[in-house]
Amino acid sequence: MSFPKVVVIGGGFAGLSAVSSLLSSKVQITLIDKTNHHLFQPLLYQVATSALSPVDIAVPLRSIFSSYKNVRVVMGEVVRVDFEAQQVHLSQHQPISYDYLVVGVGANHHYFGNPNWAEYAPGLKTLKDALNIRERILIAFEKAEMCEDRDEQSALLTAVVVGGGPTGVEMAGAIAEIANQTMVHDFRNIRSSAMRVILIEATDRLLPSYDASLSASALKQLRSMGVQVFLNSSVTEVSSRGIKLKEEWIESRTLIWAAGNQANPLIAKLGLDCDRSGRALVTPFLSSPKHSTVFVIGDCACVSDTAGKTVPSVAPAAMQQGRYVGSAIKRLMKQKPLVSPFSYVDKGSLATIGKARAVASLFGLKFSGFFAWIIWIFIHILFLIGFRSKLVVVLEWMVNFLTSRRSVRLITGVYIRPEEQKPLL
Amino acid sequence: MSFPKVVVIGGGFAGLSAVSSLLSSKVQITLIDKTNHHLFQPLLYQVATSALSPVDIAVPLRSIFSSYKNVRVVMGEVVRVDFEAQQVHLSQHQPISYDYLVVGVGANHHYFGNPNWAEYAPGLKTLKDALNIRERILIAFEKAEMCEDRDEQSALLTAVVVGGGPTGVEMAGAIAEIANQTMVHDFRNIRSSAMRVILIEATDRLLPSYDASLSASALKQLRSMGVQVFLNSSVTEVSSRGIKLKEEWIESRTLIWAAGNQANPLIAKLGLDCDRSGRALVTPFLSSPKHSTVFVIGDCACVSDTAGKTVPSVAPAAMQQGRYVGSAIKRLMKQKPLVSPFSYVDKGSLATIGKARAVASLFGLKFSGFFAWIIWIFIHILFLIGFRSKLVVVLEWMVNFLTSRRSVRLITGVYIRPEEQKPLL
Repeated sequence: MSFPKVVVIGGGFAGLSAVSSLLSSKVQITLIDKTNHHLFQPLLYQVATSALSPVDIAVPLRSIFSSYKNVRVVMGEVVRVDFEAQQVHLSQHQPISYDYLVVGVGANHHYFGNPNWAEYAPGLKTLKDALNIRERILIAFEKAEMCEDRDEQSALLTAVVVGGGPTGVEMAGAIAEIANQTMVHDFRNIRSSAMRVILIEATDRLLPSYDASLSASALKQLRSMGVQVFLNSSVTEVSSRGIKLKEEWIESRTLIWAAGNQANPLIAKLGLDCDRSGRALVTPFLSSPKHSTVFVIGDCACVSDTAGKTVPSVAPAAMQQGRYVGSAIKRLMKQKPLVSPFSYVDKGSLATIGKARAVASLFGLKFSGFFAWIIWIFIHILFLIGFRSKLVVVLEWMVNFLTSRRSVRLITGVYIRPEEQKPLL
Repeated sequence: MSFPKVVVIGGGFAGLSAVSSLLSSKVQITLIDKTNHHLFQPLLYQVATSALSPVDIAVPLRSIFSSYKNVRVVMGEVVRVDFEAQQVHLSQHQPISYDYLVVGVGANHHYFGNPNWAEYAPGLKTLKDALNIRERILIAFEKAEMCEDRDEQSALLTAVVVGGGPTGVEMAGAIAEIANQTMVHDFRNIRSSAMRVILIEATDRLLPSYDASLSASALKQLRSMGVQVFLNSSVTEVSSRGIKLKEEWIESRTLIWAAGNQANPLIAKLGLDCDRSGRALVTPFLSSPKHSTVFVIGDCACVSDTAGKTVPSVAPAAMQQGRYVGSAIKRLMKQKPLVSPFSYVDKGSLATIGKARAVASLFGLKFSGFFAWIIWIFIHILFLIGFRSKLVVVLEWMVNFLTSRRSVRLITGVYIRPEEQKPLL
C-alpha cells in the first residue's frame, strides 16, 4: 500500500513549514524548488551589503531533509499543473502526481508596469540578486576612486534605494554604514563617506505597515546616519543614468529596488484566481476555491485573517500558514472535514537600520534604538536554520560590531550584467 | 619632495609580499589587480568542492592596506607598459608612473594548444572558476537524480579530473568525499556514492614534483577512497560529452582541468623575453635583463635557484621572491648595487587527499596519512590572512571532520555557461 502523495512547490518559509509539519505522517512528500536551497530572506540584505556570505543564510534543501526518507527533493521548474489529473508538470522532468498540492512560491518585486526598470534598479529576492547588488555597490566605489570627471564621480557616489519598507530601510542604513564606517580608510582619492544615500518612499512615512511612532523613529535614526529620505515621492523614470521623481532628476549609478510586491507569476500561469497583485485567492482554509486539495500559502496567496484583515507578507505568517496546511492535510487524510479556518497570530514586527539601531514592536510593546536592535538580533538568530549558520552569523556580527569590517567585500566579476562584464572597470 | 614610486602588478602571494616588505620604507606604492581581493589559492579547491566560502580564502586588498597611507590600491587591467617613459597603462584609467616596477601576475592553466577545451573542462585559478566548478558538480548530481536514461545518468555520475599535480589530487579526493560521505543520504533515485571519480595523469606517477614515496602514498590513499587513477594517459580530445584518452573514450558531464601551467599572457604582451611556458626570463636578481628597475616574480617568472635548479611555482617561492624584491628595491634606492642573487629555501611540499589523508615532505622528512594531514592543516591556517578567516576555516574544518557536511553546497544559478543558464535543469 502506498501513502498519499503530498507535493509542495517552493522551499521558502511557507513550503518548508508545510513539509516539516508532515514529516512524521504517513505521506510521501515531494518538495520542488527552482534552487537547491532554503533562503533566510530577512537577512538577504546583509549578503547584498557584504556583511554575510550566501552560506550563512542558505541551507541546501536536501541536507535539511536528508534523514527523512519520505521526503524527496526535486530541483526543477514547474510549468503547469493538471488539476484534473492531479499532476505537476516540470520543464524537464516527468510529471509528478499528487493527492494534496501545496503552492508557496513567494513574490517578486513589482515595477509598476515598467519591467524594463529591473535592469537598472535590481530587486532583492534571491542570492543571485544579492550578489549582483553587492558587486554593483563595491564597483561604484572602485570606479569613483579612479574617476577624473567630477560629475561622474558624484553620480558614482550616489546610491538610491526605492521603497521605504523594511528591506529599503535596511538597505539604505547598511549602505550608509559601508560608506561611513567600513570603507572609510580604504580609498586615497575619494572619501567613501561622501557617498550620498537616498531612500525614496511613495507614502508619507517609512515602514507604512508599522506603528506610526516606529516610522518616525526609523526616519530619525536613518537621518542621523546621513541617509536622505524623500517621502511622498514617486518614481516616474529609471535609466542607467539615474532616477526621476516627479519634480527631480537624481543622477546615480547605483539604484536598488525595494518597492512593491507581486506574487510569483506562476500563480497566474497555473490558472488560479488572483487579486491585483497576482496573489491567489483562497478559502478561509487556505485552499483554492476550485480545488479543495490544492493549498496556496505565503506571499503568493491573498490570505485574510478570521477578522477579515489581510495577513502581511512576512516570514512568521508564511510559517504559520505552512503549519496550518500541514494540519489540514492530516485532517483530510483522516476523512475529517476542515472546521477551524486559518487564524494569524501577529507577534510583532522588526526592522534594523544599522549598528545598534532598529525598531521593533513585540506583543504590542514598541522599542527603538539599541534595545530594539538586540531583540532583532536575538529573534533572527533564533530562527536561522542550522547550528553552523547561527554560530557563524553571531561571530560575523560580533566582528562587524567591533570593527565595522564587513569581510565579504568581494567582487568576483560574474554578477554584473553581461554587457558590463568586460572590462570590469 | 616626493618619494620613489613603486608599482606592483598583481595582488597574489608574490605581489603582496613585495608590497608588505616595502610598507615601512619611504616609497609610494601602487598595487594594481584585476580583482579587488587577494586569494589564498592553495585552498581554492575547497571552494570548488563546497567546503569553504569565497570569503574564507579571499581578503579585499584595500582592507589589507587600509591603514598604510603610502599604499594605493587600483582595481584595473594593465594593457601595456611603456618601459621608456616608465609608465603602466591601464584599460580604463590614466597611466601610472613608476620608478620601480614589480610584475607578479601569476599563471593560468594550459590546454596544450587547445584553448577551446577550457569551455568543457574549466580550470581552477579564480573565485569565479571555483564557483563555476562547484555549481557544475552539484548540478551533475541534481540532473542524475532526475534522469531516466541510464547511460546519461552514468555520464552525469562520472567526474574526470585531468592532471595529477597537487590541485588534481586534491580535487579528485574532495569529489570522492562529496559522493561517498557528504551527499550519501541526499538522494532518493541515485546512490551518490555511485559517482565514478577519475584522475588522469600524463606521467607515470601522481605529484611528479614530489618524492616518489609520497607519489606512491598519494596513489594508494586516493585508490582507497575509490578514485580511479589513470597514469601514463594523455588527453587527446575534450568535448561537452566527455574526454578521450589515446585508447579510451570516457563519457562524462563533469570535467575539471588541473594540468599544465602557463604564465599569464600579459608577460608576452608586455614584450618581455619568455620561456616556452610564457614565463619571463629574469636575472639572478629577478629583474628583467633589459630593464634593471623592472622585476618579475612568482608563477609568471622563470626563476633559477643559485644552484641552477628551476624554482617551483608554489606560494612559498612566490612569497620569498616578493620579499627579496622588496629588499632589492630598498638597496637600489640607497644607490647600492645588488650583490646577492635570489636563493630559494625549499621548506617542503604538501598535498591533501581527503579527511585525515595527505602527503607531506618537510625539511627533508616525509609523512603520509593522518599526521601529514595535521601538518597540512596547521600550515594552511598559519598562512591564511586575517583572524576572521582563520577562525571560520578552523570551525568549518571541525564541522566537516565531524559531520562531512560541506555546508556551502549552493547553486546560485549564475556560474554556468550563458547558453546553459536557462533553464537551470
